[in-house]
Amino acid sequence: MTLKELAALLGGELHGPEDLQITEPAKIESAKEGAITFLSNLKYKHFLEGTKASAVLLDQANESIKLPYILVPNAYAAFVQVLKIFEPELHTSIRGISEFTFIDQTAHVHETVRAAPFVYIGPNVSVGKNTILYPGVVLLDNVIVGDDCVLYPNVSVRENCIIGNRVILQNGSVVGSDGFGFAPYEGKYIKIPQMGIVRIEDDVEIGANTTLDRATLGETIVRQGTKLDNLIQIAHNVVVGKHTVMAAQSGIAGSTEVGDNVSVGGQVAIVGHIKVGDGSSIAGKSGITNNVPEKSVMWGMPAMPITKFKRMEISMRRLPQMLQRIKDLEKELNILKNELEESRGIDGQETTND
Amino acid sequence: MTLKELAALLGGELHGPEDLQITEPAKIESAKEGAITFLSNLKYKHFLEGTKASAVLLDQANESIKLPYILVPNAYAAFVQVLKIFEPELHTSIRGISEFTFIDQTAHVHETVRAAPFVYIGPNVSVGKNTILYPGVVLLDNVIVGDDCVLYPNVSVRENCIIGNRVILQNGSVVGSDGFGFAPYEGKYIKIPQMGIVRIEDDVEIGANTTLDRATLGETIVRQGTKLDNLIQIAHNVVVGKHTVMAAQSGIAGSTEVGDNVSVGGQVAIVGHIKVGDGSSIAGKSGITNNVPEKSVMWGMPAMPITKFKRMEISMRRLPQMLQRIKDLEKELNILKNELEESRGIDGQETTND
Amino acid sequence: MTLKELAALLGGELHGPEDLQITEPAKIESAKEGAITFLSNLKYKHFLEGTKASAVLLDQANESIKLPYILVPNAYAAFVQVLKIFEPELHTSIRGISEFTFIDQTAHVHETVRAAPFVYIGPNVSVGKNTILYPGVVLLDNVIVGDDCVLYPNVSVRENCIIGNRVILQNGSVVGSDGFGFAPYEGKYIKIPQMGIVRIEDDVEIGANTTLDRATLGETIVRQGTKLDNLIQIAHNVVVGKHTVMAAQSGIAGSTEVGDNVSVGGQVAIVGHIKVGDGSSIAGKSGITNNVPEKSVMWGMPAMPITKFKRMEISMRRLPQMLQRIKDLEKELNILKNELEESRGIDGQETTND
Repeated sequence: MTLKELAALLGGELHGPEDLQITEPAKIESAKEGAITFLSNLKYKHFLEGTKASAVLLDQANESIKLPYILVPNAYAAFVQVLKIFEPELHTSIRGISEFTFIDQTAHVHETVRAAPFVYIGPNVSVGKNTILYPGVVLLDNVIVGDDCVLYPNVSVRENCIIGNRVILQNGSVVGSDGFGFAPYEGKYIKIPQMGIVRIEDDVEIGANTTLDRATLGETIVRQGTKLDNLIQIAHNVVVGKHTVMAAQSGIAGSTEVGDNVSVGGQVAIVGHIKVGDGSSIAGKSGITNNVPEKSVMWGMPAMPITKFKRMEISMRRLPQMLQRIKDLEKELNILKNELEESRGIDGQETTND
Repeated sequence: MTLKELAALLGGELHGPEDLQITEPAKIESAKEGAITFLSNLKYKHFLEGTKASAVLLDQANESIKLPYILVPNAYAAFVQVLKIFEPELHTSIRGISEFTFIDQTAHVHETVRAAPFVYIGPNVSVGKNTILYPGVVLLDNVIVGDDCVLYPNVSVRENCIIGNRVILQNGSVVGSDGFGFAPYEGKYIKIPQMGIVRIEDDVEIGANTTLDRATLGETIVRQGTKLDNLIQIAHNVVVGKHTVMAAQSGIAGSTEVGDNVSVGGQVAIVGHIKVGDGSSIAGKSGITNNVPEKSVMWGMPAMPITKFKRMEISMRRLPQMLQRIKDLEKELNILKNELEESRGIDGQETTND
Repeated sequence: MTLKELAALLGGELHGPEDLQITEPAKIESAKEGAITFLSNLKYKHFLEGTKASAVLLDQANESIKLPYILVPNAYAAFVQVLKIFEPELHTSIRGISEFTFIDQTAHVHETVRAAPFVYIGPNVSVGKNTILYPGVVLLDNVIVGDDCVLYPNVSVRENCIIGNRVILQNGSVVGSDGFGFAPYEGKYIKIPQMGIVRIEDDVEIGANTTLDRATLGETIVRQGTKLDNLIQIAHNVVVGKHTVMAAQSGIAGSTEVGDNVSVGGQVAIVGHIKVGDGSSIAGKSGITNNVPEKSVMWGMPAMPITKFKRMEISMRRLPQMLQRIKDLEKELNILKNELEESRGIDGQETTND
């Protein structure tokens, strides 16, 4: 593709030779000849001197830029577009339904579905058009998978769960395992039947080896557009709102509701039966033990507003020094007391001497 | 089922029309007509006003209750019973041994075992009666699985491991992966053979994608009735006692012994080579770095008795203020010292003036 | 094997009957007759009195040792050798290529490769000599797996990823899932194509259900000899250096570089875009939020040098007491101030009286 063609696709302004051949997108530091890279901030323009890229996407420019460039409103967003333009076609090797796929006679599999060897599709399962099922995918009874989904290797979806359209389930993720519900009874635990389901709405992505437990009754829900990273735990009856992102290894305990547009860092734990308000943001490794108001920014274990945590954290680092200062104060106060006593004693003597 | 029949099954006292049809259990807030719900505490009886449930399980009652109800000794326990009564029959779609199951000639598979397509049963494996093996289950050489077990999709059990009766392994759980044992040698790591096994006793449940490492020598053990949630790590030579529960994403390092009737919250880490006493309880996100005496309640990282942690935690929140108070004290003390010095100086002058 | 033969294999000094039969290695407390055990420190020699082992490996000895022993330079290292000597042959039940293995016509599978039933080998995949593929292993398009590797059940390796020689992938581990990259756009998230790969160098071991995300562009790398435990998250574009060990449930966020010979405890989180220097050591449950210099030893969340953390931690435990001491100081200071004021007042009166 020429630089001119690319500029046209991006709706950007061409500053460089029209016929320059662009062969791939690349990071600024590892780009080779033919690559296009991006720079969001002219502060870092010295990086351009060392790069071997043939062109760059910029959203600001000045005369010192020697490299051919395309001027766009947002260099990073344009680069994401470029990635998409150059992304090789995926899933090409999964063609049609393999003869080694198991499909129950009662399943409804759209004719455009592609299913690899060793895929299991159980009774009454429904799979929508263009959906791709990689090897080792297991869909148990009555599961509904929408259109244009991709289920990567060894994903399993348990009975009755419902998956929307354009959902991506990364390798080994589990949808609909039993919720962790046991009633203590005479020193033992009795399993509480987990009769609900998991519902995943449209445009959700679930990370590798992430687990989503089915509800005891009703539904565990991941709402539209939400993205969960790897190794996340979503317990029974949790609701995760729309367009929320959670980083790896975080967990949400039972019946908690996380709002829309929430951002959760890695290794965060959120206790059960609380609400995390829309637009809130939780820093990595936090432990959320109470309701979180809308648009809060939280950190710590137990978590608190991040500015408070940072202040506390700074004080904590001064603790050994604070302890010393308290000791010093105690010592000085004692000296002062003794001096005062003494001087009073002298005063007293003087008084009696008078 | 009629309300009368249900009352009889529960051994409860009927307060309502005998022939009222009950079609399902439901949570109080999402119940529909025909549903039965429960209420453990009359404090919340205002919830009954808004519910669409047709009946309710109560363990206390008063005249204000308009809804038909069954009076039982323990409403929550009775509701668990109701869930079991209404639980649909599970595993109905896994019938007999699929022709796509691989079974080694030397394996002993009871005639009542049901195994789905793409199940692998290796040499000398033994599978007890009524056990159900979902698609993608892998049982390597010499594995023993007891009676009435359920192994969900993509569970794998490594060579020689032993699984008791009525054990449930949720999707993707791993039994018997190599323990993490490496001997440092000249700046490299040499793998220490992991020759032991994992033994899972009767009535254990293991969560989705949870991993249990085999022992270096001897056995990693999960004792009777214990329930482990999702994404838990059990290292080599760990022993988890009877009727213990562990919430998701917790981990136990090598050779540690956790006692009976212990309760471990989510994302807890327990170091290696220690003992956690019977009946102790560890709050979520704790880091246990030392032996825990019986019946302790612990929290924090490093963990301490929970009352101590809470006291400390409250003080921590006051830290910035404490720092200010120390500053104030230092200032006032200085003023005081100066005043005292001054007044002494005046005294001194007066003295010389005398 | 006789004690004499074993002493010869270990290059150790025989102190006991030449023809004593040794049948297995065992831990000192669970050894049976015929077993050989080890003792690294004579301080613990009282354990030898209770053991049923027939012989012991020692690196120091004195006259009080009654048990037959082999004297070696390092008893622990020699015991690892003994484990290897007695380790039963592994993987014997996976023979040749199963007829239930799926191999794409374009794949290059060395004739010595052994592949179990329900293994999927995609287009252009290359598998080196002596490599063993357990049931449920999935290798997607263009994957390269080197020689002498072991891929345990339900491991999946995504398109284009590269795996070196003598690599062990424990059950359920995922190589090459999409990195967690989404560009926020008008309140939604747009998926950023993850076009890079994962490269695993020689002699690496990856734990059960651990996930390694492919790079956005370029490579996520795990370098030679590094060992990752179970349930670890390695994000896109991370580089983990040589001969580094990471304990279970730790995670590294995107683009971070961890050096060589680093040791990371369990449940550690390392933020993105930083460097962890060679030879550094990070204690369990730490949160690393900044670059870590070479050979640092870190603990805490946020992490700091471990000696500082321990000091701080001790102070923290004294916090409630510190608060009390501050209150006491304030009280005493006030008393002092009042006394001073009073005494001055008296002075003043006296003065006016003069």
